Amino acid sequence: MERLKIGITQGNTNGVGYEVILKTFEDPTTLELCTPVIYGSPKVATYHRKAIGATTNFYTIQHAEEAQQEHLNVLECITEEVKIDLGQPTDEAQQAADLSRAAAEKDLKEGKIDALVYAPGDTLPANDGLTLLLGENMCVAVATNRQPLSDVARAITAENVTAKIKAFDSCLKRDFGLTRPRIAVLQLNPEAGKEEAEAIAPSLQNAEAERISAFGPFSSDQFFGGTDYRHYDGILAMHYEQGLTPMKMLCGYNIYLQAGCETVATAPLQDAQFSIAGQGVADITPFCNALYAAIDVCRSRVSYDEARQDPLPKLFHDKREDNRRPAANPE
Amino acid sequence: MERLKIGITQGNTNGVGYEVILKTFEDPTTLELCTPVIYGSPKVATYHRKAIGATTNFYTIQHAEEAQQEHLNVLECITEEVKIDLGQPTDEAQQAADLSRAAAEKDLKEGKIDALVYAPGDTLPANDGLTLLLGENMCVAVATNRQPLSDVARAITAENVTAKIKAFDSCLKRDFGLTRPRIAVLQLNPEAGKEEAEAIAPSLQNAEAERISAFGPFSSDQFFGGTDYRHYDGILAMHYEQGLTPMKMLCGYNIYLQAGCETVATAPLQDAQFSIAGQGVADITPFCNALYAAIDVCRSRVSYDEARQDPLPKLFHDKREDNRRPAANPE
Repeated sequence: MERLKIGITQGNTNGVGYEVILKTFEDPTTLELCTPVIYGSPKVATYHRKAIGATTNFYTIQHAEEAQQEHLNVLECITEEVKIDLGQPTDEAQQAADLSRAAAEKDLKEGKIDALVYAPGDTLPANDGLTLLLGENMCVAVATNRQPLSDVARAITAENVTAKIKAFDSCLKRDFGLTRPRIAVLQLNPEAGKEEAEAIAPSLQNAEAERISAFGPFSSDQFFGGTDYRHYDGILAMHYEQGLTPMKMLCGYNIYLQAGCETVATAPLQDAQFSIAGQGVADITPFCNALYAAIDVCRSRVSYDEARQDPLPKLFHDKREDNRRPAANPE
Repeated sequence: MERLKIGITQGNTNGVGYEVILKTFEDPTTLELCTPVIYGSPKVATYHRKAIGATTNFYTIQHAEEAQQEHLNVLECITEEVKIDLGQPTDEAQQAADLSRAAAEKDLKEGKIDALVYAPGDTLPANDGLTLLLGENMCVAVATNRQPLSDVARAITAENVTAKIKAFDSCLKRDFGLTRPRIAVLQLNPEAGKEEAEAIAPSLQNAEAERISAFGPFSSDQFFGGTDYRHYDGILAMHYEQGLTPMKMLCGYNIYLQAGCETVATAPLQDAQFSIAGQGVADITPFCNALYAAIDVCRSRVSYDEARQDPLPKLFHDKREDNRRPAANPE
């Protein structure tokens, strides 16, 4: 399998972005998994390397096409001088972060990289798809993304919840390689009420009609207070906190995965951690897992799509006519 | 200290109510803590005693005044025959539960019992006070009780949150004997927004002005996902699930305490458990802890009030006149 080209944003230049990236690729085995392309500034990378005493070497390039295997590539998308002020959330550092994101997202869209991993502190761009929260053995999707709580109830409609269940099911199949994923759907209210009757129950019926294995709705306190949550491949929470708080309580690391769209993007669920910037003590686990998840999803999609294109021709013949029709090229 | 008279509802007669009560008082030391008065039917109590093979004896009375120390008293408030249909949520069994509640709540209001403990499955009556959720070493109050989620955001006003913080502070002082409780206040939204700025922040300022130690607002996922929650005596959640789900995940048992009113009432956070009724396998821990909490709160209130009545007279004298004014009998 060809090595995947994974774009990486640098994050806020005064935070821990470069630190977790450099520490992650200090281990040469990581370079066997993928060809990383950091969108940023070689000068800033060098500054951080010195600050934390890392030994990671990198190779400066101008375009993603130039990325070299077995190397950490830094794509120079920031040519101006960036003043580093470790631990300070300055405008200049944020502008550098934004330049990095813009360049990386452009290349992702144009297919120049296979996936994008955001640095700590960078948030995933809003989209119409499905943002997943992932932890060890736990996968949560949120029906209403990260809306203010006052907007949540009115966004819980049969149409919306049905669409989310379907997108979640597709994602678990194509991105995670599950054959028939089991999805748990949570209640919105402490006592089942209007939204459960008018939106969630009909959505579960719609899912059943499409042979999707969705169950519920479950009351969040019973679901997470017991062991029920262990029996499902995916959990659809009705609002952000409903999914995130239990996940943070149960999992040692957490990452975002942007599902439901053609491009693959992940992010560690961490902020820029200004208070420990440049000290070499930042935890790289969430970022590493975001990188692994991006690689896994890319590979899973390839396998899934390969298995479904150019199917074997039908070998049976109709009594009267030869109805052999290659499914990939219907007439 | 005189033994407290604790009223107990029987709960749904087809559920585990009598089972947990009989099993709790099978241990004779429990009768040293209080004089229990079950509001129910001696016949139904006998039926359940046989069903689970308990050895608990009880004494039938007609009025709370007749309750005998060292005995489990059953106050006969249900004289008609009640058909027992174990595990079935029948109307008849629910009516019996309602009769028990009505009689017990009346006696509580009239001061004939010192506190009321509800059986599993009975819900606390709604009131304007503060419903607390208690677990081991954890005390959560909910700013909006158990409202549907669609009503929550508009109930988060500076006036309401301020009132809840004050009531919570008073409760932690008088009901739990804490001198200067530390209260954590949670955010409503995943990202601090309108309600945090317009309701929660002003409430924290109001609290500070009244020398109440309230802190926050804290994002729920960080608060419960880390160890922050351990550093506070009380946690004010903005909505029911925000408090209940983490509490159920962290605590082995959970009970309700109705605070903010003169009467003391507690309930185990359990339903009537029809599926295991009459089998003798129901967990009595939540009920026992609801009983202990009711006793503790009664005792704490007595100590608190005693310490504050008839204070010692002021011993200093004003330069010009004797301003010794007994605070308990102001002119």
